[in-house]
Amino acid sequence: MLSRMDVNCDMGESFGNWNMGDDAGMMPYITTANVACGFHASDPLTMLNTVKLAKEHKIEIGAHPGLPDLLGFGRRFMNITPDDAHAYVVYQVGALQASLAVHGLKLHHIKPHGAFYSVLKAQQDLAEAVAEAIRKLTDKPMLYWPAPTSAALPTACKNLGIRVVGEIYPDLQYAADGSLVIQRHKHETDVAFACDQVQRYVETGKVQAMDGTLVELDAESLCIHGDGPNAVQVAAAIKQRLKDIGCTVTAVNL
Amino acid sequence: MLSRMDVNCDMGESFGNWNMGDDAGMMPYITTANVACGFHASDPLTMLNTVKLAKEHKIEIGAHPGLPDLLGFGRRFMNITPDDAHAYVVYQVGALQASLAVHGLKLHHIKPHGAFYSVLKAQQDLAEAVAEAIRKLTDKPMLYWPAPTSAALPTACKNLGIRVVGEIYPDLQYAADGSLVIQRHKHETDVAFACDQVQRYVETGKVQAMDGTLVELDAESLCIHGDGPNAVQVAAAIKQRLKDIGCTVTAVNL
Amino acid sequence: MLSRMDVNCDMGESFGNWNMGDDAGMMPYITTANVACGFHASDPLTMLNTVKLAKEHKIEIGAHPGLPDLLGFGRRFMNITPDDAHAYVVYQVGALQASLAVHGLKLHHIKPHGAFYSVLKAQQDLAEAVAEAIRKLTDKPMLYWPAPTSAALPTACKNLGIRVVGEIYPDLQYAADGSLVIQRHKHETDVAFACDQVQRYVETGKVQAMDGTLVELDAESLCIHGDGPNAVQVAAAIKQRLKDIGCTVTAVNL
Amino acid sequence: MLSRMDVNCDMGESFGNWNMGDDAGMMPYITTANVACGFHASDPLTMLNTVKLAKEHKIEIGAHPGLPDLLGFGRRFMNITPDDAHAYVVYQVGALQASLAVHGLKLHHIKPHGAFYSVLKAQQDLAEAVAEAIRKLTDKPMLYWPAPTSAALPTACKNLGIRVVGEIYPDLQYAADGSLVIQRHKHETDVAFACDQVQRYVETGKVQAMDGTLVELDAESLCIHGDGPNAVQVAAAIKQRLKDIGCTVTAVNL
Repeated sequence: MLSRMDVNCDMGESFGNWNMGDDAGMMPYITTANVACGFHASDPLTMLNTVKLAKEHKIEIGAHPGLPDLLGFGRRFMNITPDDAHAYVVYQVGALQASLAVHGLKLHHIKPHGAFYSVLKAQQDLAEAVAEAIRKLTDKPMLYWPAPTSAALPTACKNLGIRVVGEIYPDLQYAADGSLVIQRHKHETDVAFACDQVQRYVETGKVQAMDGTLVELDAESLCIHGDGPNAVQVAAAIKQRLKDIGCTVTAVNL
Repeated sequence: MLSRMDVNCDMGESFGNWNMGDDAGMMPYITTANVACGFHASDPLTMLNTVKLAKEHKIEIGAHPGLPDLLGFGRRFMNITPDDAHAYVVYQVGALQASLAVHGLKLHHIKPHGAFYSVLKAQQDLAEAVAEAIRKLTDKPMLYWPAPTSAALPTACKNLGIRVVGEIYPDLQYAADGSLVIQRHKHETDVAFACDQVQRYVETGKVQAMDGTLVELDAESLCIHGDGPNAVQVAAAIKQRLKDIGCTVTAVNL
Repeated sequence: MLSRMDVNCDMGESFGNWNMGDDAGMMPYITTANVACGFHASDPLTMLNTVKLAKEHKIEIGAHPGLPDLLGFGRRFMNITPDDAHAYVVYQVGALQASLAVHGLKLHHIKPHGAFYSVLKAQQDLAEAVAEAIRKLTDKPMLYWPAPTSAALPTACKNLGIRVVGEIYPDLQYAADGSLVIQRHKHETDVAFACDQVQRYVETGKVQAMDGTLVELDAESLCIHGDGPNAVQVAAAIKQRLKDIGCTVTAVNL
Repeated sequence: MLSRMDVNCDMGESFGNWNMGDDAGMMPYITTANVACGFHASDPLTMLNTVKLAKEHKIEIGAHPGLPDLLGFGRRFMNITPDDAHAYVVYQVGALQASLAVHGLKLHHIKPHGAFYSVLKAQQDLAEAVAEAIRKLTDKPMLYWPAPTSAALPTACKNLGIRVVGEIYPDLQYAADGSLVIQRHKHETDVAFACDQVQRYVETGKVQAMDGTLVELDAESLCIHGDGPNAVQVAAAIKQRLKDIGCTVTAVNL
C-alpha cells in the first residue's frame, strides 16, 4: 500500500471578469495546484491572486502552460513548431515563476494543458524542445503526467534527467489499455466510485477500467478536475477516504 | 567629462509575422537592449531570438514591459489599477527572465514602455506598486528612466533602494524645462545634431533644448530609437563620436 | 401614464469557455437585447447562439460595442482617436449585422458598452465619429442611451437625424441631478424598490434619487443588468408589475 | 484565348503599428482585393483605410477571412468545429461588409486565407458550414478559389448555387497534378516566368508545371502575392503583358 498521495488540481482558470471553478473551495482538499499561465486561461492578476491563495493553504504550485488560444481554452489542436513549443513553455513558466518569486515561493512542477498536452504526448520533436525548456528553467525540474508515463514528453524528460510524476484520474474513466476516456461535457462525478478508485489504487497500485479490467499504473499524485459540478464534494470525499485508509495526503517532495 | 556612456535601444518589437525595426543592424552599436515582453509588442519566440542575438553581441538585456494593448502598440493610456500595474510587470518581467535563464543570462534592468511609462511618470499609487514588483523580482534591481529622474516611478524606486539610471535622448528634442518633446511620426534624425548633443552631454553634463537653453541632466545612458528611418546610421555615428572624444561605450554595471 | 415600455438587457457576454449571466433565464422577461460584439465580451459563436436564442423569444436585437479590452471587460478608459472609435463601431456592428442576417433579422439599435459609453458621453469628436458610423450602417438607425440624453453621443446622433431612445435603470441608484451611480461590485437588487421605481416612472415620468428627489426623465426603455445575483427575479418582477399597472411590455418600434 | 482576366491580391494585412506589404504600390495593377478581416491580420481601422484606398483605385473588394490566430498569421492548422467555421466567416465577412457599407460599396467575393483555406479544402463538414454562411451573407455570393475548383469548399458552394471563380497563381510553381507548391520563405519572383505563365494561360488555358507538364485549369482570375520582395514589379509586368496580348484586365462581374 502507498503511504502517501499527492492531490493536484488545475487552478487559476478565470480570465479577467470571467470566473471559472471554485478555487477557494477546492484549496482545502488538495496539495498541489497547476496554475494556468495566460495562454489558454488566467491573466497576470489572476495568477498572483491564485498564488497568494495557494500559499495561504500551504499548497505547492506548478505551472500549467497551454497553447495560445484563449477563445478555445487551449483545447484545440494547433500545428506549432518545436521552437514555438519551447518558447511557449519558457514564456508561461517564467511568468508564473515571477508570480511565485514576489511571494517568496519556488515552482514545484510543470504540467501541460489540454491540446498542448495532446501534442506533447505524440510529437517527439516538440516533446524534446519542451523537455529542454523544463530542464533549463528550474534547478529541480519535475513533470506531472498521467500514468503510464511512456508518452513522448515524459520520455524526453526522463532522458534529460527530469523527474516525472505519474498521475491517476479518479473522476475520469479508464479504457482497458490504461488510457483516459476524456468527456467534454461536464457531469456530476460519481463520488463513491471516485473514492473507491482512489482506495483501490492506493491499496493495489491498480485502477479499474470501464470494462472491469484492473490496470497497473505508476503514480504518486491524483488529479481532480475543479470545474465539475460537484468538484468540491469529490475532493473532500477523496481526502477523507485517503485519511480513513491511513494514506498521508501531502505534496510530492520537490 | 564622463568617462563612460551606456547606449540603450528598444529591441524585439516584431510580432509574429510582422517585423519592426532592424535589430540585427542596431546591435553592433548599442550596449543594452530593452526587450519588449509580449503585451505591446513581441511574442515568446521573438523574445528568445532577440535574447540570443543580444547575447551574441555581448549586450546586456533589460525588460521593456508595456500595457496590454497590441493593437495600440502600448501607446494608448489605459486606466489600470495599482494591482494591475504590479501584475503586468511581474508577468512580463518573469517571461523575459525565463527567456534569459535558458540562455544562462540575468536581467539587467527594467524600463517601462510608452503609455505605461506615462502613467508611471504621474501616478503615485501605480508607481509604488511597480517599484515593489521591481524590488522583489531581482537581486540587483535597476530602473532606466529619462533624466531628470524625479517622476513618480523613479522616486518610488529610490525609496525602495532600487538603483535608477538616468537617460538622455539625442534623437529627440528637449523643452527648456528638460522634458522630452515626443513626436509621433517618424522622421529622419539629424545625425550631426544627435552626435553634437551626445558630445555636449558627455563634456558638460548638459543637453541643448529647442530654444537653445542648456539643461543640466543626470544620466549614465543614452537611448536611441530603433524605428527611425536612419536609426542604424544614427547609432553608428554616435558610437564613433563617443570613441572619438575618448568616452568608453559600455553597459551600466549591474 | 406611459402606455408601453421596452425592457432591455445586455446579452451574449460569455467568452469561449467562460460563461457570464443567465441569458436563457432573462429572455422571457425582456423585449430587446444588447448583444456584445467580441471586443469586451462575446465571440463569433456566442453571438450567433445569442441571436438564435433571442429570435426564439421574439426579442429585438441591438449591438453593444465596446473598447478592445477583453481582459478589462471594456470597463477601462482607453485613449482612442475619433478614427478608432468610428472603426470599432463599424467593425463590431457589422459583425453583429451579419450574425442577424444569417437568421433573417435586422439590427434594432446600438448601445455603447462600459468605458466606450463613458468616452462617448464626454468627448465631442469621438461622439461625432461614432454618430457618423451609426448613420451609415443602418437604414433606420437608433441609439439607446441612459436618460437624460443630453450627452455628447446622443446629441451628435440627434444632429444627424438618428433616433435616440432614453433609458431608465431601476436596478441602479440615481443622484439628484439625474445621473446614475455606478457600483462596481454586484449585489442583490432590492426587487420592491426596482418595481416601485418602474411604476413611479411609468405613472409620473419621474425616478426617485437617493436623497428622495424626484427627477423627470425622458425614457422609452428600461435597462436591467443581467449579471446581478438576482437578475432573473428582478426582471420577472418588473415585467409583472408593468403588466399589473396596465403598461404594455414591448420593444421600441424600429 | 481569354478576352478578359481579373487580377486579385491580398490586401490590408497590416496590424496596428505593424506594416505589411505595399498596398498602395500594388493597387494600380490589380482589379480585386482580398481584404483581411482581423483574425489573422488587419484591424478595424486598417480595414476601413484599405477599403478607402481600393475604392479610389476602383478595385472590387472581397473578404479574406482567416483562423483566429494573429500570432501565427492564420497559417497554423487549428482543429475547429463546423459551428466555429460558420461563425468565423459570418463575423469577419460582416465586419468587412460594414466597412464597405460606410463607403457605399458592396462585397464582391469571399476567399479564405492560409490554414483556413487548407481545412476548407479537405474537410467536408466545415466546407458545408462555410458555404451555408456565404450563401446567407450576400445576394450574389461568389467564392474565389485556386483552380481546379474540385475541393471541399468550392464543391459545397456549387451545390448551394454559389458562383465559384477559379484562380491561377503565376508567382507560385505548379506540380504536375495542378496543385500549387507553397513556399514559406519569400523570394524574388521570376518576372519573365510569371508573365509567360500568364500569357500561356490566357492563350491556351494551361499552366506549365515544374516538370514541364502543361496542366489545363479553369480560371477567371489570377492571384499575385503582395508580400514578395518584387511584388509591385511582378504585378506591373503582368498587367503590361496582359495589355500587350490584348487581354482586358478587369474584375469578375458581380
